[in-house]
Amino acid sequence: MKQIEIIETGYYLPKKEILNEYLQKKLNLEDDYIKKMTGIEKRYYTETETIEYMALESVKNIFEKNKKINKEQIGLIIVATTTPNKYMPGIANYIQKNLNIPNCSAFDILAGCNGYITAFDIASTYIQLEKIQKALVVGVDILSQYTDDKDVGTSIILSDGAGAILLGGQNQEKKYFSKIISQGNKNEILTCSKEEKIYMNGKEIYKYAVTEPVKMIKNILEQSNISLDDIKYIIPHQSNERIMKAISNRLKLPEDKLYMNIQNIGNTFCASIPIAINEMYEQNMLQKGDKVILLGYGGGLNTGCILLEI
Amino acid sequence: MKQIEIIETGYYLPKKEILNEYLQKKLNLEDDYIKKMTGIEKRYYTETETIEYMALESVKNIFEKNKKINKEQIGLIIVATTTPNKYMPGIANYIQKNLNIPNCSAFDILAGCNGYITAFDIASTYIQLEKIQKALVVGVDILSQYTDDKDVGTSIILSDGAGAILLGGQNQEKKYFSKIISQGNKNEILTCSKEEKIYMNGKEIYKYAVTEPVKMIKNILEQSNISLDDIKYIIPHQSNERIMKAISNRLKLPEDKLYMNIQNIGNTFCASIPIAINEMYEQNMLQKGDKVILLGYGGGLNTGCILLEI
Repeated sequence: MKQIEIIETGYYLPKKEILNEYLQKKLNLEDDYIKKMTGIEKRYYTETETIEYMALESVKNIFEKNKKINKEQIGLIIVATTTPNKYMPGIANYIQKNLNIPNCSAFDILAGCNGYITAFDIASTYIQLEKIQKALVVGVDILSQYTDDKDVGTSIILSDGAGAILLGGQNQEKKYFSKIISQGNKNEILTCSKEEKIYMNGKEIYKYAVTEPVKMIKNILEQSNISLDDIKYIIPHQSNERIMKAISNRLKLPEDKLYMNIQNIGNTFCASIPIAINEMYEQNMLQKGDKVILLGYGGGLNTGCILLEI
Repeated sequence: MKQIEIIETGYYLPKKEILNEYLQKKLNLEDDYIKKMTGIEKRYYTETETIEYMALESVKNIFEKNKKINKEQIGLIIVATTTPNKYMPGIANYIQKNLNIPNCSAFDILAGCNGYITAFDIASTYIQLEKIQKALVVGVDILSQYTDDKDVGTSIILSDGAGAILLGGQNQEKKYFSKIISQGNKNEILTCSKEEKIYMNGKEIYKYAVTEPVKMIKNILEQSNISLDDIKYIIPHQSNERIMKAISNRLKLPEDKLYMNIQNIGNTFCASIPIAINEMYEQNMLQKGDKVILLGYGGGLNTGCILLEI
C-alpha cells in the first residue's frame, strides 16, 4: 500500500475584488456589519470567468510551480463542486482536454461543502491501492451566481474561487486516516438546485457546524490514536469566522492552530480547503512530518475529516 | 485485500410506457422508423416521478428482495447521473436520509454515460482496501426532460430509469480489473448542461462508440490475461442497437454474448448497466464464477471497462 503525499498545490481567484463597503451599501447594512458577523473583509466574484476556466487555472498554477510533473502519471482528475454548469462533459473533462493529460479518468462530484474532502479521499484510496500513481483533486465554486441578492445571510458570506492539489504516493510510512459521514436529517437547512439559489438556515447551520465537526475530529483522533497536541494545524472549510472560532473553542485549541483565511477570500465552498492548503505551503507553514487535520462540513449534511501527515 | 461481489440488484422504471407509435406520430416519422434505426420498441417516461424518487425506488427494490442486508455495514452511497436537479443535498443524500443508513458517506458523480462504471469502480476500490464493507451504487437519469422535442436523433433514443447494485467484499479470490479513460478531444459531440438539452452528433458518436470501447475491451483482456472466450457476457451501456451490434461484430462475438435490453427500455444513460445486470440476475443468467465485462462509453468522452467475476 502506498502512502499519500501532497506533491504540489495551486489556486485561482477571480480578478474582481469585492470589498465589504460595496456589499454593505448594496444590502443596506451598517458599516462593519459584515466583518463583525463573518470575519470577512473582502472576496472575489467572477465576471467573465467560467467555472471551467477557474478550475483549469488552479491546475495550471500547479504546473507553473512544478515543471517536473509527468502528465502521463496522472491517473485521475476529480473536481468537487456545488455549482456545476455543464453536466456532460464535466469540469474535470475540460481540464483533461486543455492540459492534454493522456491516461486518466476524469469526473466531477457533488457532495456539498464537504466535496473537497470526499474527492481527496477518493483519490487517496486509488493511490493507496496503487490503481493510479497521481491524482489531481480540484475544488471550485461560483457562489456569486447562486446567491440571492436580497438574502443577506448568504450574500455577505459566499464568494468564488478554485483550488487544486496534485496527490501522489510514496513508500515511507505516513499517517492517513479519513472518515466521512452523511446525515440526512435536517438536510433542508442548506440547499442549492438547478432552479434555485443557495438557501441557508444560518441558525440551524451554526448549531450543526459547531457540534458534528467537533465530534468528527474527536472521532478521527481516537481512531488514529493520535493526540490533538500532535496535530500542527486543523484546516477547516472556511464557512464563517464565528463557526470556526466556536469549533476551535470547543476543542480548546491554542490560538492559530486552526487555520483561517476567510477574511480575504470569503466562503468558497468546495474551493476553501485547497486554497487554504495552497496558502499555507506558500507561507512555509507545512513541513514534512507535520500532522494536519482537514475538516469538511456542510450541505448534505456531509461531515468529513482527513488526518494527514505532510 | 477484499474481492468484489454483487450482493443484490434493484431497478425502477417510470409508470408511463411510451410506444414507438406515439413518438413516430409526434415526430412525423414513418412506421417502424424507430425500431429500424435504434432497435427500441418501447421506453418509459417520468410524469410525476422525480429523479430522487426513482433512485430511491431502485434501492428500495434491493431491500425488498433481500431482507438480510445490515444497513450499518453500508459505508458508501454513490449515485451516477447526468441530469441532476438538486446540487446539494445530492440524490445519494436523499437515499441515505429516506432509508436511514447510519454510517455512510453519500455523494453524486457526473461522468456522462460512463458514470455507472466510474461509480462502481470507486465503490470497489473502497471495498478492496477495506475502508468500507458494503456500498450502494446507483445509476439514474431522467433524459426525457433533457430531450429537445424537435431533435429526432435524441428523441427516439433517450428514456428514463434507475438501477442499483449493493456491492460487498469477500475473501475468496475473484477476478476484478478496471480501466477508465477520458479523452477530451471531440468532447463537444455529446453534451448536456444546466441550460441546454442533450446535444448529440450521432455520426461522430457512432464513430467513437464502435472504436474506443472495442479497444478498451481488448485492453482489459490483455491487462487481465483473460481470453474473450472465457467471458460469459459483455454488458454494455445500452446506447443504440446499431452501435452495440457493431461492437459485437468488431469483437467477433458469438450472438447473445453481448447483452441487450434496449428494445424494451431505451437508452437510460447512467441507469442502463445496472438495469441490465438486474434483469440478467432475474433471468438467472449470471452464476458464481462467471466472468463478465461491464462496458461504459459516452459523453466526456469517457470510456470504461470492468472485468468482474460473479
